[in-house]
Amino acid sequence: MPVLSHEFDYIAWIRSQAAHHQRLSVGIGDDAALIAFPPPGNCLVTVDMLMEGVDFLIPQATPRQIGRKSLAVNLSDIAAMAGRPVACVTSVALPRRGGMELGRGLFEGLAALADEFGVALAGGDTNTWDGPLVISITVLGEPTGRGPVLRSGARPGDWILATGSFGGSLAGRHLDFTPRVREAQALHQAAQLTAMIDVSDGLAADLGHILDESGVGAIVDEAAIPISAAAADTTDGRTPLEHALGDGEDFELLLTVSPDEGQRLLELSLGGTPLTRIGRITTEAGCRLLTRDGQLEPLPGLGWKHGFDAAQTKGS
Amino acid sequence: MPVLSHEFDYIAWIRSQAAHHQRLSVGIGDDAALIAFPPPGNCLVTVDMLMEGVDFLIPQATPRQIGRKSLAVNLSDIAAMAGRPVACVTSVALPRRGGMELGRGLFEGLAALADEFGVALAGGDTNTWDGPLVISITVLGEPTGRGPVLRSGARPGDWILATGSFGGSLAGRHLDFTPRVREAQALHQAAQLTAMIDVSDGLAADLGHILDESGVGAIVDEAAIPISAAAADTTDGRTPLEHALGDGEDFELLLTVSPDEGQRLLELSLGGTPLTRIGRITTEAGCRLLTRDGQLEPLPGLGWKHGFDAAQTKGS
Repeated sequence: MPVLSHEFDYIAWIRSQAAHHQRLSVGIGDDAALIAFPPPGNCLVTVDMLMEGVDFLIPQATPRQIGRKSLAVNLSDIAAMAGRPVACVTSVALPRRGGMELGRGLFEGLAALADEFGVALAGGDTNTWDGPLVISITVLGEPTGRGPVLRSGARPGDWILATGSFGGSLAGRHLDFTPRVREAQALHQAAQLTAMIDVSDGLAADLGHILDESGVGAIVDEAAIPISAAAADTTDGRTPLEHALGDGEDFELLLTVSPDEGQRLLELSLGGTPLTRIGRITTEAGCRLLTRDGQLEPLPGLGWKHGFDAAQTKGS
Repeated sequence: MPVLSHEFDYIAWIRSQAAHHQRLSVGIGDDAALIAFPPPGNCLVTVDMLMEGVDFLIPQATPRQIGRKSLAVNLSDIAAMAGRPVACVTSVALPRRGGMELGRGLFEGLAALADEFGVALAGGDTNTWDGPLVISITVLGEPTGRGPVLRSGARPGDWILATGSFGGSLAGRHLDFTPRVREAQALHQAAQLTAMIDVSDGLAADLGHILDESGVGAIVDEAAIPISAAAADTTDGRTPLEHALGDGEDFELLLTVSPDEGQRLLELSLGGTPLTRIGRITTEAGCRLLTRDGQLEPLPGLGWKHGFDAAQTKGS
């Protein structure tokens, strides 16, 4: 493998690695890339920046894992719109010492995931500095058949469904999760989803985003919340439920749908990904938990901040 | 003005400031934005990341200047394709202390420039951390009438033209330049440009990129190079010519065109922006300088790195 002594070597190496993609007529190596969006010509765009010490720790995370996660969190946002990812561009600030080899690993991790989801590597901006690693990826995508699913469409009476399980992602899963792109498309093809979000801030906080945007409330059924093994296996004094509601970085889908359509979705096969009904949308504002003993309480979990340092926070 | 205590306040404030844009059907506040690209549906995309200490110094640059520059360097890349900018997304890592007020200034600077060029503010990702300021902007655009102008189309015999003047940008101009978007469109409408690039790495280096991509060489006429007043006014031992060829961050356009069309371009009015013929494309590879005394020498200027710390470098 070539020794990558500075950015131009690195960029030339990336360019040699990037595969041809049919939607990309101008790729890496010019001032901008050119990507085709056939009629009706709707382009979804989302961006996420990951920072060393906040979104990952080195060396606990390998360069490949960091590169993979940087793209995966963005694909998760495209999934939340029931979209199809098309292309990405990457900007990176690499630590000067060892940065080029770090950059190689980043690229390999993100390129493998891009290949898995048919995403074109359209270009980027590579920098070195004395600071920690920062990587920002922008993903372009397009809506699928029924159009994009927004956060704002939840209606009273809708069921609240969730893929997978929640809590404890920072123990490892945040570095190797598979974004729910295929599941979102399958769900949206099978039913008219009324609202959807991917869970990055935490189940409670992200449900709150749907409620705020839709102008509705919700009741979540404690007994129904799928709690991950990692959330049940902690010794920090917080309950598994608190982890499931507050940890964040689950990158599961949280969606609302009419009860009729919801029943159909629960019978759908999602390639092994569980789908669970966890509650319902209410006219009454606020988000409440129906406890195992039948009480209605305010939903806990909004007070936590995810990330390795609670004082260093992410918003989107 | 509201006190912005954390990201959610900041994001809500940005959302309240972002104007409606006819190309944007879903904007800030969902998992992704939705932007219309009417037929033929070609989307230009470019990204640039700016880092404190590399691309700007605080407090020498104000937050507004930093925000403005972050967008301007990307608009310059769209200009280099003779494109029309449409929308942008921004990711930012704000220093924890004072970050929200810094973020406000950044937004005001970039929003004012976005408004000037009709660019929609489509979304972003806001983070705080203990590190220095990092801001990455991705701009989406679209080609104009004759299609995008690439780096790869220069042909032997073509004239080499340049807008504006070169050198000494770090003395101040890099913070307040106006990207040559209008000039690029006017030039491309008036003639079939064969290649174009914006000068960020330096006149010599960026001409080198055109030559590499086009598989040609060039002769640059020393007497014709427009040297900025800032380049002539330095006391670091380098000549004004060396500054003009090597400094970078000029964000002027460097383009090639057939002699017939080039003559027409030189007679064009570009709203006060000078356009100068500085050389010609040759079949013979390499880039040579025709000195004032008629000698052909290798073009100097490739050895310099721009930015405030030469060891911290940018590539794209």
